Amino acid sequence: MQDVYSFADGKADGRADMKEILGGKGANLAEMTNLGIPVPPGFTISARLCVTYLRQGELPGTLRTEVERAVERLEQTTGRRFGDPTVPLLVSVRSGAKFSMPGMMDTILNLGLNDESAAGLAQATGNSRFAYDSYRRLIQMYGDVVFGIKAADGGEDPFDAALAALKEARGAARDVDLAAEDLRGLVETYKDVVVRATGKPFPQDPWDQLWGAVHAVFKSWQTKRAVDYRRVNGIPDDLGTAVNVVVMVYGNMGEDCATGVAFTRNPSTGELGLYGEFLVNAQGEDVVAGTRDPEPLAELKQHLPAAYAELERVCGVLERHFRDMQDVEFTVERGQLYMLQTRTGKRTAQAAVRIAVDMADGGLIDRREALRRIEPDHINHLLHPTLDPDCEVDLLTTGLPASPGAAVGTVVLDADKAEAMGRAGEKVILVRRETSPDDFHGMVAAQAILTARGGMTSHAAVVARGMGKCCVAGAKDILVDEAERALHVNGRTVREGEWLTLDGSTGRVILGKVPLVPPGLSDEFARLMSWADEVRMLRVRTNADTPEDAERARKFGAEGIGLCRTEHMFFEGDRIDAVREMILATDLEGRRRALLKLLPMQRQDFVEIFRTMDGLPVTIRLLDPPLHEFLPRRDEEIRELAETLGVTEERLRHTVDVLTEANPMLGHRGCRLGITFPEITEMQAQAIFEAACQAAAEGVEVVPEVMVPLVAHVEELRRQTALVRATAERVFAERKRRVEYLVGTMIELPRAAVTADQIAEVAEFFSFGTNDLTQTTFGLSRDDAGRFLPQYLESGVLEADPFQTLDQEGVGKLMELAVHIGRKASPRLKIGICGEHGGDPKSVHFCHRTGMNYVSCSPFRVPIARLAAAHAAIGLGKEKDV
Amino acid sequence: MQDVYSFADGKADGRADMKEILGGKGANLAEMTNLGIPVPPGFTISARLCVTYLRQGELPGTLRTEVERAVERLEQTTGRRFGDPTVPLLVSVRSGAKFSMPGMMDTILNLGLNDESAAGLAQATGNSRFAYDSYRRLIQMYGDVVFGIKAADGGEDPFDAALAALKEARGAARDVDLAAEDLRGLVETYKDVVVRATGKPFPQDPWDQLWGAVHAVFKSWQTKRAVDYRRVNGIPDDLGTAVNVVVMVYGNMGEDCATGVAFTRNPSTGELGLYGEFLVNAQGEDVVAGTRDPEPLAELKQHLPAAYAELERVCGVLERHFRDMQDVEFTVERGQLYMLQTRTGKRTAQAAVRIAVDMADGGLIDRREALRRIEPDHINHLLHPTLDPDCEVDLLTTGLPASPGAAVGTVVLDADKAEAMGRAGEKVILVRRETSPDDFHGMVAAQAILTARGGMTSHAAVVARGMGKCCVAGAKDILVDEAERALHVNGRTVREGEWLTLDGSTGRVILGKVPLVPPGLSDEFARLMSWADEVRMLRVRTNADTPEDAERARKFGAEGIGLCRTEHMFFEGDRIDAVREMILATDLEGRRRALLKLLPMQRQDFVEIFRTMDGLPVTIRLLDPPLHEFLPRRDEEIRELAETLGVTEERLRHTVDVLTEANPMLGHRGCRLGITFPEITEMQAQAIFEAACQAAAEGVEVVPEVMVPLVAHVEELRRQTALVRATAERVFAERKRRVEYLVGTMIELPRAAVTADQIAEVAEFFSFGTNDLTQTTFGLSRDDAGRFLPQYLESGVLEADPFQTLDQEGVGKLMELAVHIGRKASPRLKIGICGEHGGDPKSVHFCHRTGMNYVSCSPFRVPIARLAAAHAAIGLGKEKDV
Repeated sequence: MQDVYSFADGKADGRADMKEILGGKGANLAEMTNLGIPVPPGFTISARLCVTYLRQGELPGTLRTEVERAVERLEQTTGRRFGDPTVPLLVSVRSGAKFSMPGMMDTILNLGLNDESAAGLAQATGNSRFAYDSYRRLIQMYGDVVFGIKAADGGEDPFDAALAALKEARGAARDVDLAAEDLRGLVETYKDVVVRATGKPFPQDPWDQLWGAVHAVFKSWQTKRAVDYRRVNGIPDDLGTAVNVVVMVYGNMGEDCATGVAFTRNPSTGELGLYGEFLVNAQGEDVVAGTRDPEPLAELKQHLPAAYAELERVCGVLERHFRDMQDVEFTVERGQLYMLQTRTGKRTAQAAVRIAVDMADGGLIDRREALRRIEPDHINHLLHPTLDPDCEVDLLTTGLPASPGAAVGTVVLDADKAEAMGRAGEKVILVRRETSPDDFHGMVAAQAILTARGGMTSHAAVVARGMGKCCVAGAKDILVDEAERALHVNGRTVREGEWLTLDGSTGRVILGKVPLVPPGLSDEFARLMSWADEVRMLRVRTNADTPEDAERARKFGAEGIGLCRTEHMFFEGDRIDAVREMILATDLEGRRRALLKLLPMQRQDFVEIFRTMDGLPVTIRLLDPPLHEFLPRRDEEIRELAETLGVTEERLRHTVDVLTEANPMLGHRGCRLGITFPEITEMQAQAIFEAACQAAAEGVEVVPEVMVPLVAHVEELRRQTALVRATAERVFAERKRRVEYLVGTMIELPRAAVTADQIAEVAEFFSFGTNDLTQTTFGLSRDDAGRFLPQYLESGVLEADPFQTLDQEGVGKLMELAVHIGRKASPRLKIGICGEHGGDPKSVHFCHRTGMNYVSCSPFRVPIARLAAAHAAIGLGKEKDV
Repeated sequence: MQDVYSFADGKADGRADMKEILGGKGANLAEMTNLGIPVPPGFTISARLCVTYLRQGELPGTLRTEVERAVERLEQTTGRRFGDPTVPLLVSVRSGAKFSMPGMMDTILNLGLNDESAAGLAQATGNSRFAYDSYRRLIQMYGDVVFGIKAADGGEDPFDAALAALKEARGAARDVDLAAEDLRGLVETYKDVVVRATGKPFPQDPWDQLWGAVHAVFKSWQTKRAVDYRRVNGIPDDLGTAVNVVVMVYGNMGEDCATGVAFTRNPSTGELGLYGEFLVNAQGEDVVAGTRDPEPLAELKQHLPAAYAELERVCGVLERHFRDMQDVEFTVERGQLYMLQTRTGKRTAQAAVRIAVDMADGGLIDRREALRRIEPDHINHLLHPTLDPDCEVDLLTTGLPASPGAAVGTVVLDADKAEAMGRAGEKVILVRRETSPDDFHGMVAAQAILTARGGMTSHAAVVARGMGKCCVAGAKDILVDEAERALHVNGRTVREGEWLTLDGSTGRVILGKVPLVPPGLSDEFARLMSWADEVRMLRVRTNADTPEDAERARKFGAEGIGLCRTEHMFFEGDRIDAVREMILATDLEGRRRALLKLLPMQRQDFVEIFRTMDGLPVTIRLLDPPLHEFLPRRDEEIRELAETLGVTEERLRHTVDVLTEANPMLGHRGCRLGITFPEITEMQAQAIFEAACQAAAEGVEVVPEVMVPLVAHVEELRRQTALVRATAERVFAERKRRVEYLVGTMIELPRAAVTADQIAEVAEFFSFGTNDLTQTTFGLSRDDAGRFLPQYLESGVLEADPFQTLDQEGVGKLMELAVHIGRKASPRLKIGICGEHGGDPKSVHFCHRTGMNYVSCSPFRVPIARLAAAHAAIGLGKEKDV
């Protein structure tokens, strides 16, 4: 088996598709060589040797011969000799695995130099500054990566220290201000550093240098950082890294030399044309190290027009060949362009969309490929404002990324104040220990919400996501000090009125105002989405509780409402008073009276939502949360409410107390409410059907789907369905008008899943409530999981947060069972998902595979779901004809 | 098809096994007739006609002919004629369905009498008092059950009123003080009552009387009470009732007449010999109505020795024939014994056991049949003291029957006082709003515990059941007023120091002292249990946390401990301080220090349990509850603890606050604790294995099984198992001794059930924690279910409380899946159940059927489980050879 792959003079042993053996860098060097692109000659040592070497501690005996032969070929091509004292062959040595991976050994340049050949090189080039600068760089890099000479704890890197001391002694501001003789002296100093650190002199034999470097590259596969990175990113440990040995070319031999990096298109915007930066008379590491400010690539056109033209040509070849935007490294040596690397370029979401669409339009890729190019999660960034990535931030603490986006505002600690300031046009961030329905008006007025307690489904998180508003929840380091009107965070204090910036996508809480980048949906985005719609088989609906949400979601392409949570309608304004009156009523009469007050408000909500969703289905979930969620908790609020309702404070407190539950998640909620208080279900059904009749009378096409929550036993559904249907008939008779409608149920409890066959005989549709189904299947409260789930993820007990990505092995197994036995009992059953997983790409794939009809997610995730559904359809090869 | 079945002169058309057609009463009358037992002749109209009649509103035309022929046969046998003016044939008409059922028409006696034949009867018998008394009884009974003449709202029954008026007018104290002429006048008054109520005269034609009665019997199948009873008891509605028409015999024709009821053995104790009561010169209804005090049956021997001897003989025949204790009705007419009814006699649990064992010993039934005769739940009464059933009680309110048994004590509102009084030998009942670990010492000292809040798995309930101590939990009408040192209950006040009686088997809270009946386990009981052990295939273990519990359970026949909850060991004495110190420690060092204090105490507990269970397996569950359960909640307790631990009150409050969970049931508990704090698992494992080594060194045979709780993902179990095994090896090396042990897991989350195949690859045993599995599968918190579950059961949404009887359809489906895929992955996997269902007979049947190896339940339910396991084995015909 071949272990060394050469590339030189337009011919290479390797190819681009040999990344497993050659690593990404080596494979692409080979490919470029074969394409006739100017690449310095070199060879790659196979990554297959890496793992064997690490296990056995030695390299195969045959390797030496192969490498020697490869070096010989380089000598023939270049006319130089390895170790030659006057015309030495110098090489770079670089690691390169299949996947780009931080933590591995990066680069050793100028390998092959020693005392003798440095002198020879100085003479041959007539540039002793260049020769000794190259040599001292070799010693420094080699010392660092092969001998591991680093800064001691808290100290300075000994090479850097020596250079700094020299510059100070010479009064030199920059490296280039040092004379050749200075650098020659520096070489000696560096060699001393090596002796002090290793007890041995810097190796003078180029072969010793080469083999030392090869061993070091292979060993770097095992650095802690590399191992950690692989674990986190799921890269197999037995892949190994290749070693690339390439003849040196120099961008630092004079003004006709340069080095730079380029993207074949703008990686921020996706615009056509080269984009990058370069330095004249410099080596690559100068660009990276930032010791000199590089110039925009366009300047190269002025400077070295022929080289620039060649770069443009080469980049065009590369893009056409690889059919994607490339990120290249190049060096111009005495006017001659050399390509040192090419790889697929990283890009922003915006650029990714633009590039994919442009390339599809240009015929470089087809539309399916364009879709494949965009990671669904990536476009999340396009839908929300984001922090200006170029800004330095003062991070206060981090909480849960409860609702994406970014926001800036002044700290306000109570909802009333937030509302007042919000109305006055001020930007505020509402900060609360945790929020309750009483804070709703403040949340509406605020730019964003920050809480110290609560999880990803806490009140704050759910409400914020529903409103598409940035929220950081459960930032547990924050102590909200209402008395002092301040937050205490890790020893720092932020007073009410001070500016905060929240990043709801990462959970960062930042002191001060960070500039935001507004979202902008381009035409390209719209076109890409329309291509997605053409191939996907899953419908995409939205979770929306208000006409505003519905409107927004429809703009994002939602094909209906999959979940309209009626309880959120209960919190606004004086509705909450009627709700509380209903809860506190001691008899049926009292409850009915209070419900009658709610009826017209609910009806009006539904009318507006039906209008907004004209022609599309609207799934309305009956009241779900436990009643105590509507009651106040704090003494002051209780006092006020008691006064409003005209009951004694004691009685109210008693009711609050009695309704408090040990485990509200598993308590008196969902259809359990509708069964113990059928009048609530009746009122809601009446509001729905009256609204439907009213909207239909206006010419709106209404498609209501009534959804019964938290069914554990088919009998619950049977009774609630009967009540809904009876109410519908009553309304239709009164209004002398019928509308078609469905009655179905959430599948959000394990018992519902395992008895889905029975439930399917009653339900006209299933909607998986994967939030609750995950909580109950795992026995894991999302509000409480913060205490150990992060550790579970970090230490690998769980591979993914099951609230973010559907747990297909456990929860998914129950869902598959439910779909299977449900459809067996009722073959045309409509099945969807309305948990937050509905907007998670991996989970969307699962829904596609399981044969569901639709996913439903928050408005802001609708485009993500559309794209993910398209991916699922493409991935499984079941796409419709385009 | 035959609709009328006659019985007369030792020959009957029917048989005992025709209860579906003839009803229980009719079938047994036929059977007795065939056995040659003196039964008055009669016939039974088939129950099959009942439902048809109710649906169609009319009887088949053929019936009239059949009935006429049957009456003719009665006329031939008796030599009397139906409607004959001088020697009238009189009959009784009674309903009788397959199952005894309250609410249906009971009895009409003396049917066939009218004005003319009453006079004739008076003449023929020379006893006109008898004749008119019989006639007026007919009119009254007929008026009541056929015409529905009842007392108006708040008024008196018009017949009773007329009788009372007559007695007052005559100055007669008793019915018998009325003269024949008085009764003749009463007949006229009664006839007027009928005319006034129905507008028609009392029917004079005996055939009209008979058909009216037949219709009335059939219609009584549909009375509300009968329908309700059938629904509650699961009796099909289409069964219908038969009609029994039997020639009248008279126990009221003189001193050589009598009527009575008898059990063939004592129904309270099971003792051999007739047991019952009788009245001389009376009709059956006099015994039932209680207008005269009946005499003990033994007296009949003196009175009518021949009749008594015949009764003894007949009862012997019946017992041998039916092979069970009989409950009979008889009448002696002029010295001649007639049997009017026989049926299997109801009996106490104690009697049931004694009778079954005696009959098996006597060869009347085999041992398997003896086992079948005892309902497992029934013997619960034998294991706890019970309230004297003869006492009147003053019911204060009712709570949840959280732990069975009965107890009497004075009200005490705090644990310290309860402990002090308990130590002083006083009997107290600890009454708390709800209990916390801080109340433990008071619970130990109290006779029983009563709480106003909390469900069937509240702290109070679980601890009480563990101690086999009576507990009524969640008696929500009770307001505990600590300031006033009193309870307010539905407008009544009970002060500290007043006596209460609790019935933990029904949830009754009774004011005052009610005498208790102590439990007594007879020799017969022990023998029956040994027979059960011979046939059952399921092992029965116990849930025991202390050596005392273990000892008790072993006496009850437990074959090991299936669940030893280590956390209960944490609550006692100064242990709780160490636990709290551990929780409040801010670093690993601090936690380890505190755990080191707990280690010797845990070890000592385990040593004692191992000693007690010598030779039997002991399954020890690692720490399960969330840590906040160990922390105090009330301000005062927090203050005290802060002082004890030397931390600020504020910091302690903050910790309590931070650890508080929204849904503790789904929170940071179970193996999640052991994974975030491995040092806890290590300490517990160390204590277990050190104790095992120590006990083994004493010659005890130890069989430890370490159980990891709340596993959702196999990786959790993998890590905890590794930790336990490493600790075991360390201890074995130190102690230079090895013991065999197993490491397994609870299956108590739906995710564990659906991934049981993966888990089985690591676990050496499964133990279904059906409490938690039911909570998560249903999404139903047992502590909160009290608000709606009772209504669910009452209205039939659920057929049974899933916390009492395993929900086989839902939870059971997950368990079957887990057993199936678990055994497939690991065929010799040991599987048991340790939820409270382990002691529920129906659930035990399920466990047997599913192929589990054992059930584990609280000590007091071990005998129940043993018997239920035997039933399961018998029922499935898979029993071992006996």
